[in-house]
Amino acid sequence: MTLDEWWRAYQLYTDYTELLDTQRLDDWIHLFEDDCLVRVMSAENDKAGLPLALMRCEGVPGLRDRVHAIKEVSVYAPRTMRHVVSGLRLTRQGGDFLATASFVVTQSLEGAQTTVFASGVYRDRLTPAGDRLRFAEKVAVYDGDLVVNSMVYPL
Amino acid sequence: MTLDEWWRAYQLYTDYTELLDTQRLDDWIHLFEDDCLVRVMSAENDKAGLPLALMRCEGVPGLRDRVHAIKEVSVYAPRTMRHVVSGLRLTRQGGDFLATASFVVTQSLEGAQTTVFASGVYRDRLTPAGDRLRFAEKVAVYDGDLVVNSMVYPL
Amino acid sequence: MTLDEWWRAYQLYTDYTELLDTQRLDDWIHLFEDDCLVRVMSAENDKAGLPLALMRCEGVPGLRDRVHAIKEVSVYAPRTMRHVVSGLRLTRQGGDFLATASFVVTQSLEGAQTTVFASGVYRDRLTPAGDRLRFAEKVAVYDGDLVVNSMVYPL
Repeated sequence: MTLDEWWRAYQLYTDYTELLDTQRLDDWIHLFEDDCLVRVMSAENDKAGLPLALMRCEGVPGLRDRVHAIKEVSVYAPRTMRHVVSGLRLTRQGGDFLATASFVVTQSLEGAQTTVFASGVYRDRLTPAGDRLRFAEKVAVYDGDLVVNSMVYPL
Repeated sequence: MTLDEWWRAYQLYTDYTELLDTQRLDDWIHLFEDDCLVRVMSAENDKAGLPLALMRCEGVPGLRDRVHAIKEVSVYAPRTMRHVVSGLRLTRQGGDFLATASFVVTQSLEGAQTTVFASGVYRDRLTPAGDRLRFAEKVAVYDGDLVVNSMVYPL
Repeated sequence: MTLDEWWRAYQLYTDYTELLDTQRLDDWIHLFEDDCLVRVMSAENDKAGLPLALMRCEGVPGLRDRVHAIKEVSVYAPRTMRHVVSGLRLTRQGGDFLATASFVVTQSLEGAQTTVFASGVYRDRLTPAGDRLRFAEKVAVYDGDLVVNSMVYPL
C-alpha cells in the first residue's frame, strides 16, 4: 500500500468510528455502498468456516432497518461505545482494496465504569467513490464471547 | 484536513500522551498555550450542557498548580496511566484547528493487574506555534463513571 | 522524525501485531535481525534498573525456540491476543532508529469475555533492511502485574 492509499482509508475508518460512537447513524450509512454486506462474527465461527453471523445487514436497506431498530427499540439500556483502531493495512484487489485493522471497543453503561466490550479484527473491502472510499463489505470478527443480547450497535 | 496537518497534530498527541504517561509533567506543560483552558468532563454533563468539570485548569499557571499537586500530594497510591489515541481528525477554524480523537486510558496500580480507567473523546483546539502545534483548549469527555478521587492525572 | 520514516515504522508495527495476533509466528520471526534481543519486562524492574525479564529471546534462534514452545507445548488454554498501538515516535541513532509506542493488549480465553491483558510501552531499535525496517532490539515494558504463567506470546 502507498501512504496516500492508507491516508484515504484512515479517514474512512475515522468517519466510521466517530459517526458510530456519536450515534449519528443516518450519516454513518453514507459510508457504505448500496449493495454492501455488513457482518459481525465470532472468531470461533470464522475459524470453523461457519457463515453464522451475530449481526448481518444486506445493503443500505438492511443498514437502514438496523438503524431504525436501534433508534426505536427501547429495550436496551443506554450505553456509549468507543472504538480505537490500529494497524490498518490495505491490499489492492482489482479496483478495490482489502483492508484489515485491529479494534478495541469499550462500553459504558449509564452510571457504571467503562469496560472492554470487544476486541477483534476488521476484514473489509473498500471501493473508491469519487475521491473517497466506501465500504463494499465489512466483517468485524470479534475475539471473545459477547453477551449476545448486549449487541446493539455494529462493531 | 490534509495529511500534513494531520501529521503535525499526530506528533502533538504523541508528545501529550508520552509526557503524561511517563510523568514528565514539566515538559508536558510546554504543549499548552499560556492562556489555555484544560478540562475533564463527563459525557453526562457534556450532553446536558452543564459546564461542571471534574478537573479544570486555566492557563499555564493553572496547569503548574495541578502538576505541583500531583508531585507533592502523596495521598494517591502510585499508579501508571497509559493512553491509546485513535481516529484523529482536524477541522480548520480561522488560523486554528479543531481536533477530535478517541482515547482509551488504562490504569495500573502497584501490584495489581491493568484495567481500563476511562475511554472517551478529545475535543480540542490547536494553534500553530512556529512549526509545531499547541493546545489552546483541551476538553477530555469521558464516557462512563469515574471513581472521582481516583482522578490524579488529566486525561 | 519525518513522515516517511514514521510510515516505514508504522508498517513494521502493523506487520508485528498482525502476525503475532494471527499466530503466523514463522513469518513474524522475519521481522527481526539475526542478532536481535527481544525482552518483556515489568515497569517495576525497568524503573529499578534490574535486568530481569519475564521473557527473553536472544537472536533468531532464541525466537525460534520460543515459537516452537508455543506451538508444541499444550499446557496453555487456547487464547487470542489483540494489540492496539498508538503514539509511535522515532529518533535517529546512527543508521538506526529508536522507536517508542504505547500498546494495549487484550486477551480472550475460549468461552470467556475479552479483558485487558496488559498495557505498556515499546522501546525498540529498528534497523533498515533494504527498503523495510526490522527489529534489532525490542523491549516491551508492561505497566501492571501479569499473571506470570499466563504469558504465552511475547507482547
